[in-house]
Amino acid sequence: MNIEDDLMFPEMEKSQTNRLKEKIFETIFEADTFYGKLFDIVLLISILVSVALVMLESVASINAQYHHILVVCEWIITVLFTLEYALRVYCVRKPLKYIFSFYGIVDLLSVLPTYLGIIYPSTKYLSSIRILRLLRIFRIFRLTKFMRGGNLILIALRRSRSEIVVFLSFVTLIVVVIGSLIYVIESDHPESPMKSIPTSIYWAVVTVTTVGFGDITPVTGMGRFLASILMLIGYGVILVPTIIATETIRGTRLREPGKNTQVCRHCYDENHMDGALFCKSCGHSLHREGDSFKVRKE
Amino acid sequence: MNIEDDLMFPEMEKSQTNRLKEKIFETIFEADTFYGKLFDIVLLISILVSVALVMLESVASINAQYHHILVVCEWIITVLFTLEYALRVYCVRKPLKYIFSFYGIVDLLSVLPTYLGIIYPSTKYLSSIRILRLLRIFRIFRLTKFMRGGNLILIALRRSRSEIVVFLSFVTLIVVVIGSLIYVIESDHPESPMKSIPTSIYWAVVTVTTVGFGDITPVTGMGRFLASILMLIGYGVILVPTIIATETIRGTRLREPGKNTQVCRHCYDENHMDGALFCKSCGHSLHREGDSFKVRKE
Amino acid sequence: MNIEDDLMFPEMEKSQTNRLKEKIFETIFEADTFYGKLFDIVLLISILVSVALVMLESVASINAQYHHILVVCEWIITVLFTLEYALRVYCVRKPLKYIFSFYGIVDLLSVLPTYLGIIYPSTKYLSSIRILRLLRIFRIFRLTKFMRGGNLILIALRRSRSEIVVFLSFVTLIVVVIGSLIYVIESDHPESPMKSIPTSIYWAVVTVTTVGFGDITPVTGMGRFLASILMLIGYGVILVPTIIATETIRGTRLREPGKNTQVCRHCYDENHMDGALFCKSCGHSLHREGDSFKVRKE
Amino acid sequence: MNIEDDLMFPEMEKSQTNRLKEKIFETIFEADTFYGKLFDIVLLISILVSVALVMLESVASINAQYHHILVVCEWIITVLFTLEYALRVYCVRKPLKYIFSFYGIVDLLSVLPTYLGIIYPSTKYLSSIRILRLLRIFRIFRLTKFMRGGNLILIALRRSRSEIVVFLSFVTLIVVVIGSLIYVIESDHPESPMKSIPTSIYWAVVTVTTVGFGDITPVTGMGRFLASILMLIGYGVILVPTIIATETIRGTRLREPGKNTQVCRHCYDENHMDGALFCKSCGHSLHREGDSFKVRKE
Repeated sequence: MNIEDDLMFPEMEKSQTNRLKEKIFETIFEADTFYGKLFDIVLLISILVSVALVMLESVASINAQYHHILVVCEWIITVLFTLEYALRVYCVRKPLKYIFSFYGIVDLLSVLPTYLGIIYPSTKYLSSIRILRLLRIFRIFRLTKFMRGGNLILIALRRSRSEIVVFLSFVTLIVVVIGSLIYVIESDHPESPMKSIPTSIYWAVVTVTTVGFGDITPVTGMGRFLASILMLIGYGVILVPTIIATETIRGTRLREPGKNTQVCRHCYDENHMDGALFCKSCGHSLHREGDSFKVRKE
Repeated sequence: MNIEDDLMFPEMEKSQTNRLKEKIFETIFEADTFYGKLFDIVLLISILVSVALVMLESVASINAQYHHILVVCEWIITVLFTLEYALRVYCVRKPLKYIFSFYGIVDLLSVLPTYLGIIYPSTKYLSSIRILRLLRIFRIFRLTKFMRGGNLILIALRRSRSEIVVFLSFVTLIVVVIGSLIYVIESDHPESPMKSIPTSIYWAVVTVTTVGFGDITPVTGMGRFLASILMLIGYGVILVPTIIATETIRGTRLREPGKNTQVCRHCYDENHMDGALFCKSCGHSLHREGDSFKVRKE
Repeated sequence: MNIEDDLMFPEMEKSQTNRLKEKIFETIFEADTFYGKLFDIVLLISILVSVALVMLESVASINAQYHHILVVCEWIITVLFTLEYALRVYCVRKPLKYIFSFYGIVDLLSVLPTYLGIIYPSTKYLSSIRILRLLRIFRIFRLTKFMRGGNLILIALRRSRSEIVVFLSFVTLIVVVIGSLIYVIESDHPESPMKSIPTSIYWAVVTVTTVGFGDITPVTGMGRFLASILMLIGYGVILVPTIIATETIRGTRLREPGKNTQVCRHCYDENHMDGALFCKSCGHSLHREGDSFKVRKE
Repeated sequence: MNIEDDLMFPEMEKSQTNRLKEKIFETIFEADTFYGKLFDIVLLISILVSVALVMLESVASINAQYHHILVVCEWIITVLFTLEYALRVYCVRKPLKYIFSFYGIVDLLSVLPTYLGIIYPSTKYLSSIRILRLLRIFRIFRLTKFMRGGNLILIALRRSRSEIVVFLSFVTLIVVVIGSLIYVIESDHPESPMKSIPTSIYWAVVTVTTVGFGDITPVTGMGRFLASILMLIGYGVILVPTIIATETIRGTRLREPGKNTQVCRHCYDENHMDGALFCKSCGHSLHREGDSFKVRKE
């Protein structure tokens, strides 16, 4: 993310060209100046419009009626984005580093499909890549305070990594085993849509996550019983993290008062901290007189 | 909400008219007196009846059979509400302030559609506005202790604003990217209902929120695989706040011993317990030498 | 629940009859003796069998084939339950109190429908009441340690009553307003199933709770957009209690050290408890010398 | 899990055979050596391939086209797994203990169905057992740090056992009672699919867990009203553990000041802070008069 620090020019070597470059850099990459903010707002609107264009193009009725307008708008956006891309490459100190950075590739993928559409007939595969322009929005918001919230979430997720792996393994196991089991139970029934294990595993995922599309459903009594168990598992698993949280809180409460059992032999004060050597109330040593470890002799 | 404080009359200037106004004000706006409580109960019933009327009117079979009864009831309710609105405007000290307040507008919208129905033929658009009468219920409960619960929720939400923004951005990004991807995968299949990106994004919202209507479902193997990932994301995202909560608790437990900022002047040990008088590591008094409170002189 | 304490016989007056009564009481109402435990197990099995009978009877194909066996089994169970009911009435000291207690009524409702079936032709309304026999199971488990878990839940729910009321009000408001709105948007579309406000409110409940049956779904673009918002609300609302919990934890951590700002004028000790009058470390009054409230003059 | 400790050879008795056995043991059961790691990776791939084979075999179109390839692959995997099973039996010190251990049975069930397929015509019941090969993956990951996360979850679940029982009892009760009730309401309607109590209880499970397939849905007004209540219960029940967690936290905060059991001998005030030397209400020393530790004599 902090690509800017690397790309910026050192204060010293400022020629005429460099001043222009720096000016462009400030406008495009930063948001402190008036033009920087203006650029960000224009860019934000362009991105939203271009994403809307991709969506509208995919709707058959709209594309049939307004095809020409959509194509013109698309080219305006593409030229704007190409210009922006060129300026970005021009003004950074290490163009290659920018080009192969995450946002550099996203920027290129935002314009490439439209140009490729001239050479090859534009397919939906090609034009759908343009939806990735949405990712560019996140660069505009890069410096806002909302990133802190995101960081907090990332830290919490990283710390809970082992629990997440256990969670996913458990869901995978449940889904494969119950999916196969329901295939064995259901597949012989003439009306059942569970005609293969992959299909029944897909159904198990749909069920355990409580999504429940209903395009595939068990029709036999046994299948429905097994489905009920799977649903209750899916419903119950959501509660597990909360249960762990509650237990963690209880653990905090229960363990805290009794965690140190030292009692001062002089004033009988309790509740000393772990590793305390002297009574916090009267200053006497907490270790027995005959101990090998005597810090303080009076 | 506290519009009453502004609208009330000062204790001094009480003429005959003012006494009447004040009496009406007490009855309509407050709930302390007997008539005030009675008014609230009557109003509550009227609102519930009127909302039920709007609902019943929309059911074709009921409207066909009982159309005349419904119209009569509607007019009784409307006249009552109009009377109430007039009294409210009459008895408050600053009628304009009331008229343009939130509840003032709601009160007007409760009666206006019925009158407009005389001039223009009553459309369902017009009559549906009357459902907003339900909002008037919240005024009746304005002074109950339940508002505290609501406030607590609002405060918690305001403090978690950045997390909510991150949550919504994440869901939007997931939904747009996976929605577009499944459109690319599925749209060529003759049986697939995902014929445009807006439709497939709508499907992605239905799926990630674990609602799962099932009117639009993937039919190809790849589409179902991608759908499974989306479902697991939707299922897992609900757990993220709980994980953060657990991490926060753990953080609390770990950091808690450090809330005492006393440092021993003799051995520079930190992390003493609250209320500790002597250093837990070297036994020296934690209070300054020149302090008026000197427990221990050796 | 503690009906037993009232119904038990005092130690004194034990005639031959009373001894029998007490023996029966111990067997039926308590689970300490061998016969008491045996009775509980037999009762548990009878209840489960009888509930299964009610279920099987409702399945047309099973009822057609095994009607006579089901009727015979039903009568055996009914006679057993009648005998048990008679014994319960006989052995308790205050029969009327038992008869009109919660379980007394449940016990009566367990046998009554079968007898009424002789007089009136047995309808499904009548026979379905027998499913309430399931409630009798909870009496058998009445003395186990699991009740503690239930009590904890009840206490927590009672304390969060105002939050639950706010939660339900909010869901009701959302469901009525968005349900009416989608009716206005969708009802004109020829394919839309939302032909009345009650139907569209039912759909809104199905959607906001993330159940999503899919029997009623929006078909217009605007309707689907509104549905997406409703789904995100439903998906997000589940997270609100967790957010509140997290905020409560943070609040605990942040508020605790600083909640009392009193500082002793004599020993400068801080962190006194709320409402403390004297310094916890040196015993001096925490109130200013000239204060009207001086408890301790030495 | 710690079967290895029992099966290992003592350091002493190492003949030529034993050395080989030990070498094989190290390679198969452990992951410290190079060959041990290689073995684990090969085994992991074999398991994944074999599970994929079972799945593909169940897809009619794939099985029709590639039947011979699938059979050949299946036999290669089976022979490999048989060899591995034989080596495991050979190299452990107590073969019987391994054979009847959990993984011993899983290992046997991984190869048995293929051999039984020669004698009996291979049915889908038989071949589906092979999906249990997936369980073997968990042995490979047995020594990773992720088990800790799993243990934490298990401990938390075991401690919350009584709450889980209450939760399941409550869901069962709700589902049976509302399922029966909706059967009584709906079953007379010609279009209703709820034709028996088991079916309507299945529907109630689908609804309360917020899965909502939509294959069975209420069609009458009363049925839909009851369904709405059931949905709100299902939606609300997920929140109960969070509410309990919040209450537990609040309880922690409220009760914490009371963990100090000191009572003033002068004014009998309680709830002093930890480490308090003097009563916060009357200023008297909290320590007994005759104590060796007397700070303050006036």
